[in-house]
Parts: sequence; C-alpha cells; structure tokens
Amino acid sequence: MNGAETLVKTFLAGGVDVCFANPGTSEMHFVAALDTHPEMRCILSLFEGGVTGAADGYFRMTGKPAATLLHLAPGFGNGYANVHNARKGHSGMINVVGEHADYHLRYDAPLKGDIEGVTRSVSDWVRVSMDARSVAPDGAEAIRAAQARNGQIATLVLPANTAWEEADGPAAPLAPVKLHRPRPDQIAGAAEALTAPGAALFVGGAALHGPLAQLAGRISARTGCRLMADLFVSRIERGAGAVDIECLHYPVLENVEILRDVKHMVFVGAGQPVAFFAYPDRPSTPEAPDCRMLPLCTPQMDIAWTLEALAEAVGAGEAAPRLIDRLPSEAPNPSAPLTPDCVGEALAAVMPEGAIIVNEAVTAGAALLGPLRQAARHDLFYNPGGAIGASLPLAVGAAVACPERKVIAPNGDGSAMYTLQSLWTMAREELDICVLIFANRGYQILRGELANVGVTEVGRNAERMFNVEGPELDWVALARGHGVEAVRVEETGALINALAGAMAKRGPFLIEIACGQP
Amino acid sequence: MNGAETLVKTFLAGGVDVCFANPGTSEMHFVAALDTHPEMRCILSLFEGGVTGAADGYFRMTGKPAATLLHLAPGFGNGYANVHNARKGHSGMINVVGEHADYHLRYDAPLKGDIEGVTRSVSDWVRVSMDARSVAPDGAEAIRAAQARNGQIATLVLPANTAWEEADGPAAPLAPVKLHRPRPDQIAGAAEALTAPGAALFVGGAALHGPLAQLAGRISARTGCRLMADLFVSRIERGAGAVDIECLHYPVLENVEILRDVKHMVFVGAGQPVAFFAYPDRPSTPEAPDCRMLPLCTPQMDIAWTLEALAEAVGAGEAAPRLIDRLPSEAPNPSAPLTPDCVGEALAAVMPEGAIIVNEAVTAGAALLGPLRQAARHDLFYNPGGAIGASLPLAVGAAVACPERKVIAPNGDGSAMYTLQSLWTMAREELDICVLIFANRGYQILRGELANVGVTEVGRNAERMFNVEGPELDWVALARGHGVEAVRVEETGALINALAGAMAKRGPFLIEIACGQP
Repeated sequence: MNGAETLVKTFLAGGVDVCFANPGTSEMHFVAALDTHPEMRCILSLFEGGVTGAADGYFRMTGKPAATLLHLAPGFGNGYANVHNARKGHSGMINVVGEHADYHLRYDAPLKGDIEGVTRSVSDWVRVSMDARSVAPDGAEAIRAAQARNGQIATLVLPANTAWEEADGPAAPLAPVKLHRPRPDQIAGAAEALTAPGAALFVGGAALHGPLAQLAGRISARTGCRLMADLFVSRIERGAGAVDIECLHYPVLENVEILRDVKHMVFVGAGQPVAFFAYPDRPSTPEAPDCRMLPLCTPQMDIAWTLEALAEAVGAGEAAPRLIDRLPSEAPNPSAPLTPDCVGEALAAVMPEGAIIVNEAVTAGAALLGPLRQAARHDLFYNPGGAIGASLPLAVGAAVACPERKVIAPNGDGSAMYTLQSLWTMAREELDICVLIFANRGYQILRGELANVGVTEVGRNAERMFNVEGPELDWVALARGHGVEAVRVEETGALINALAGAMAKRGPFLIEIACGQP
Repeated sequence: MNGAETLVKTFLAGGVDVCFANPGTSEMHFVAALDTHPEMRCILSLFEGGVTGAADGYFRMTGKPAATLLHLAPGFGNGYANVHNARKGHSGMINVVGEHADYHLRYDAPLKGDIEGVTRSVSDWVRVSMDARSVAPDGAEAIRAAQARNGQIATLVLPANTAWEEADGPAAPLAPVKLHRPRPDQIAGAAEALTAPGAALFVGGAALHGPLAQLAGRISARTGCRLMADLFVSRIERGAGAVDIECLHYPVLENVEILRDVKHMVFVGAGQPVAFFAYPDRPSTPEAPDCRMLPLCTPQMDIAWTLEALAEAVGAGEAAPRLIDRLPSEAPNPSAPLTPDCVGEALAAVMPEGAIIVNEAVTAGAALLGPLRQAARHDLFYNPGGAIGASLPLAVGAAVACPERKVIAPNGDGSAMYTLQSLWTMAREELDICVLIFANRGYQILRGELANVGVTEVGRNAERMFNVEGPELDWVALARGHGVEAVRVEETGALINALAGAMAKRGPFLIEIACGQP
C-alpha cells in the first residue's frame, strides 16, 4: 500500500469523505488512490478558487472539514483568496497539496515554488510529509488540526514520492483537541455586565444558528441586554422563527451610531467589531469611547459551554428568546420598477423554508436583507474574509452538504466574475442552486469608496476601473457556456416568474437581473 | 501631493506607463492619482490572474516592466500563479499591493492577511512603505529591482495611509543595477568546449530572439556545436528566417535521447534542463552521465556581453547562422479530418508575418509546432512556470505591447478556463487577438500522467477529474458572454475559413476547434 492509499483510507476513517479537487501531475498517485475508493466523493472544479471556497461552504453547513486536492504552489495560490475567507470565518478544511518528489526539489523545475511560504501565510497548520510512512499519521493530524479551535486551515504538503512509495497502512483518528473555556470569575463578571444598562451580548460562530442561538436569545431575554452580531458572519439563521439578532452594518459611521449607547459588550464566539477599511478621519472601531469590552470567549474557544455557563449564571431558565415574526410576504407589483428592494420582496415571497442564502451582492445585497429578514426561515452566509469571489464556490459546498435544501446565491456582476467557473461544477453535480446576478455593470462599491476618499469627479482612468461595460457581460451566455440554464429579466413581472420557476425546479439556474441601484 | 500621486509620477518618470489593474478600496487613492495622469494607460482585468499574466506578456515583448495594481493579500493571491510564471520566465513587473492603513493592522479586519508572507514567497524584492514620504523613493527602487538581473518580480506594499498622507514629491529614476559577467578564463574554457565534438550551446532569455539569437547562431555555425534551448521558454523567434534553435521536448525520456551524444553543454542565459516532473524510475535531468556542464552565464547575468565575448573567442566573425527555411505553406485539404496537426497546417498557411503565438494548448500544442516552424516569422511564448492559465493574460499583455502585431493564443479547453475573464479585457481594449480553443473535453495531459504512474484502468473518480464533459463547455457562449465574437468549427474546411476570417479582421476573435487527439 503506497502513501497516497494510506492517506485516502485515513481520511475515510476520520470521517473526511468529500474531496474538492483540481489535481495535476504531482497528485496522480492520490488520484489513483481515490479511484479505488468510490466512497470518497470527488468533485472537480475547473479553477482552484472553486475548490477551496466549496470546502468552506461545506464546513459551514456540516461542521466537518472536506479535503481539497491542489497542484503545487501555484495551484494553492489560485485557491488562496477563498482559503483566506474560510480562515476568517473559522471554517476547517484539509488542503492536500502535491509537491515535487523531494529529490527533484533541488532542480529548478518549472512548477517549483516556495510552497511552504505560500501555504504558511494563510494556514493554521502546515506539514510537509517527510516520507511515505509519515503520510497517514500526518493525515490524521491534519484532520485533528482542521477540527481544532472550532475549525482551522490545515495544509498537508505531499512530495510526490511520499505518495508513490510503500507505506505501512492507514492511521486511526486522533482524539480531538480540547477547547479552551473562560474562568468562572470571567463568567460571573460577564453575567453581571449583561444585566447592567446598555449591555450587549455580541455573538458569533455557532451561536448564530440552531440551539446555541436559542440559548443566546434566552440570555438576552432574561437580562434585557441587546443581542448583536457582526454583519460579515460565516452563517446566521434568519427569517420567521429565527432568534432576532441585531447585526451591524458595513459603514463604520453607521455602526458608531448603532453602538452609541452600548456601555458593556460581552463577546462570545466573536471578536471586537472593526471597520472593514480605515479611512482618513474615521475610527477603526465603532464602539463608544466609554464602552467596556469583555472578550469572554474567542471564536476559537468553547462557545457552547460558555453560553450554557452564562445562561446558568444569569438564570436564563426557559426565558423565551425574541424571535423574528413572519411578515406576510407579498410579491411586489409586477409593474413596479426593478430595484434591489423589489428583488428582495420577490425572493422573500417565494423562497422555500430552509433555503441557504449565499450573499455576495456587494452593493445590492444590503437591500435584500430587509425583505428576507421576515421571509421563511433560512441560513444566510456572508463573507467574513471580504475577498470577493466566494459566493459561487460557497454555494457549491453548501449544496453538496445539504442536497435537500435550496441554495440561493445573490451576486454582483463584478464579484461573480472571480470564480465563475463554479457554474460548471453546479451543472456537473446537478446542484440545486439558484444564482442571482445583479447586473449593475460595475464595481459599484468602489464608486462609493472613491467618494469616501474625497474624489467627486471621476475621470477616464477611474471610470474604466469601476465599470464593466464596454462590453457588457452577458450572464445568460456565460451560464450556458458552463452548462447552466439561465434567463435575463429586465422587469419585475419577469423576475417574479423567473424566481417562481427557479424555486419549483431542482438543479442549477441563473437569473441575470438588469436593475439599477437601491 | 500625497503618497499615491508621488508614486504615479515616479513611475511615469521611470518609464513605467502601463498599469494592469484590479483595484479595491485600499487602493482608492492610487486610483484617484491615476485618474489625474491619463498618460498612464490603465487596463482593467476582472480577475487578478489576468492582471499579473498581462504584465508578464507585456515584459516579454517590450523588456519593460508594467505596474500591476492589486487589492491586499487575497488579491495578490489571485494573481499568484501568473506571478510565479513570470518569475520563472525572468519577466520584470512591479506589483503595487494596497494594504490596510498601518494603524488599522492591529485589528483583525476581514481582509487583513499575511501580505508579506504571500508576496515574499514569489517575489524577488518586497518593500512595505513605511510612510508617505517613502513611497516615491520606494517606487523608484521597485522599478530598479524589476529591471535588475534581466527582470525580477518587485512588489511594493502600500498601507493605505501612506497613499493618502502628504509626501514630498516624485523620485528620480535610479541607475540600473549592473549585470554580472563571466570571467575571461570561463569564456576561454567555454569557447574551447564548444569546438570539441559533441558540444552544445544551450541558450535562453534574450538569446532566443533578435540580434542575440543571430549571434548565438554565428557561434554555432563557426564552432559546429549544436544550438539548443529548453522547450518551456519565455519567448523564442521561429518561422522562416529565424535562427534554427533545436528545442527539447516535454517527456524526459525523449530528452535523454536528444542529449545522448552531447558531451559538453555551455549554458548562456539558461539553466540546466530538468524534467518537468519526477516519476518513479525516471531521471530528474536528461543529460548524458558523461556530459560536462559549463554554466557560463545564468539567466540573471549579462547575456549580450557573454555572447559577444564568446563570438570573439571562437572567431565567429560573420559566419552565417543556420536559419529556418520557408516551407511553402499549404492549407490542408478541407475534407481532411480535423486533427491538431491539421490545425497547425491551416494556421501556418494564413499566419501573418510577425505574429505572436502564445501557446498553452497543453497536449494539442505540440502538434502545432511542426507546421508552425516553417511558417512566416513569429515569436512563440511558452510557459516557463508551468502553471496553466497563463495564455489568455499573456496574450493581453503582448497585444498591449505590440498593437500592430497579430496575437494568436492556442489553448486547451482545460487551461483556458483558469483565466477566461481575460476575454473581457481583450474586448474592452479591442486587442488584436485570435484565441484558439482545442476542445478536447478534458485534461488530456493528466490521462497520460496517470498512465505514467502505472494506472491503466481509469475508474469513476479519476475519470471525473480528467474530463470536462457532462456538461460540455460551450466556448462560443463563453466568449460572447465576455463580449468576444466566436465561432465553433467541427471540420477542416470550416476551420480554414474561420482562420482566414480571423487573420483578415482586427480585434479579438475566438475559434472553438472540436478536434480529437493528434
């Protein structure tokens, strides 16, 4: 049994049974090993950003790391941005990166690069296997690392000869790394702070959905504190019946306003809120100057235990969390102008229970949130790493993880272009994903950002870096080119029909929405 | 004048007047500065791999570095693979990477990453500007670094505040770094070796085209040595009238055969040839065991001086280099089966003088080389870094550099998918590029590589990682989606017509060629 085979068997024994892949020659023994293990689901992406983003989306829904298969330093480079996003969102993944055979490394072969440099710059754990017998134990450690601290980036670099040389056999799963917990006095202090006037419980990670969101909601109900979260979270449960968590906005000055009266912030599963970017004469962080910050439980610590201890300390008991009401959803008037708000209303009216919304409509996306808030219960993904080009790959991963749920991916025409190759994987795997493209013909966000830096007149060089007109992108053609059915709508009535059709069918579908700004 | 403005002025003063860009918020002051300097040509790519690959192609044709504009660590990550390729081909470029304002870095903002880690892993020179007044001198040093040693990757990281804060003014260009030269005794030794039986002059870099190729050809004619080069070179002049340089092949065992009788190899502008990958039981390098290797002048040294010294030492005088003859090009029979050879013949028949061929047809491309060898004189790009996804961006850069020359980019359907967004830039800039897609429906190269590792039966997991069928990519739709006119041909007659049409018109055009293997 060679090293590659022992790794596949180790992964399967450790519960890692999905592999998003874009392999090359140096991974051929791994491909051969996968080939004899059909119980490992292999999903091809035609670009590595699609691979790593899919692993992120898969983790967000399952809490389980997937493996990725990447080709040397440049292949990892192509996946870099979505590894960054996954890391910022505390998703676990195991990157298997093929390297040249160790004895070949002293030559300057074309694909030789600083594989340790590039992988270390965005991984929590990196290991280069030293020989074939190390591959299986290294693989077991990679699984443990990817699951540690609520999810980490584990990267295992396999020189080709360690894959093809003879090894001993697979390695058994390792005991998981124990999560850190706050001290009892910290729990008591936080509990006291939460009952003070102007208190907020600021949550993240697993506290944003399911039973832990309920628990956080009970603590808030019992103490009267505000229950808050960042805007750019990995996954949050929303819609009718979800715990009502107040989210920050994108502009830092709006967040300053939102947090003006907050005097005690207790953090569980989240770090301190921070401005997405710094601007001249604007603050880097939005909290009030006299706000007391209590970092009780970082995103890497034991969120469940902390919330339970906090609930007990405040006597939350069976206090009822504040839930989002169902707003009777009504489709917009078919003759209303086609704006992003209108898209939100139309979507809210037809969206099925349990949908997964992967939001990367950078400017238009904000307008969706109001209408969607009180639609049917759903999970909402944001991009905690901020590198655009995450949505289509995330949608792939979420759909692989939850084949019974509808995935909806609102995108800007600018952002979707970064990883449009994921459309092909949606078609290949027949994933139940509805992609919405807000065709606003440019990087609208940057127009606002240029104004933020004080430029009000836009000349040719700037204009040509913001708009994606001349030529216009034709998303119906792009989708069809990848094997995905698509339609373009220019009026609200057509949008309502297209959305109804998309919700009624299974499989990938793309709607290009010709709409202006909110 | 702020830091960003001083940088733009410093670049223009230093002859850097093209900027390939995919900016974000942290680069807005730089965008504003570019906006007031229309003499800097700004070219937008919708994906960063398109940015960095274009800078590479631009350098290959001009010998001048372009600037790139990239957005933080993930933006650089997206451009990583083509920076790698450029570095392996010794192309110079100046990457300007926006970073968070320095005082904002202590917060964990979404886009904060290890920007020094990722940039250092693939750059020859990295500088993080410390304040606004350092930006201009750092920019002048970046230009010098990008031009040093025949071309390097220089990366300048600009914290946003160094761009917006007040600075002094632009910096004057710096004197270039002097190139190293071999010692006289090394020249004499090499000259002697070249006259021995079984000698080869193995050249690279600037010795592969123009007057230096002529000089190398004269040395070879005078001494009787073979004149050779690697296959994966950055740029080589070929076609009728070009100096006849014998190139190695891809499979290492074929190269062992080619080099069997070479007993003395003198290297000028090139390193030792090496197998693209290592395989069990195959050598890492192809030279004969008793071959004497003389590394006279590395790719980073003074190639022109070395060749002149060598020519003088061997008394090359006006010896006539062996040139490639013109083969009367004849289009294939329109009813012949549509194979890659046939595509090569059809292209050779219609290709205009001075075309630039950017070859990334991974498997089909080899078949083109025979027919093209004796076509009209042209420049041929290979990918010295081996990371696929270079061709379309390189074509953009070459077309920007040489607007009067036809650029032809043969691609595999697998390789072109990595950076297909460059099609849009071709349309936006009305670049005179003809893209050929060999639609062989998969990563054909990997089928061969799996066989190379001893696997003869391909199962479902492997098959689904090699083919890109189910669904088939529709390149005509993909091109049109990006605003590029396109046609699909399935027969030789149709191909001949399509190529004739493409050569007669200006502007981007894509031909999807449904053809089998050679």
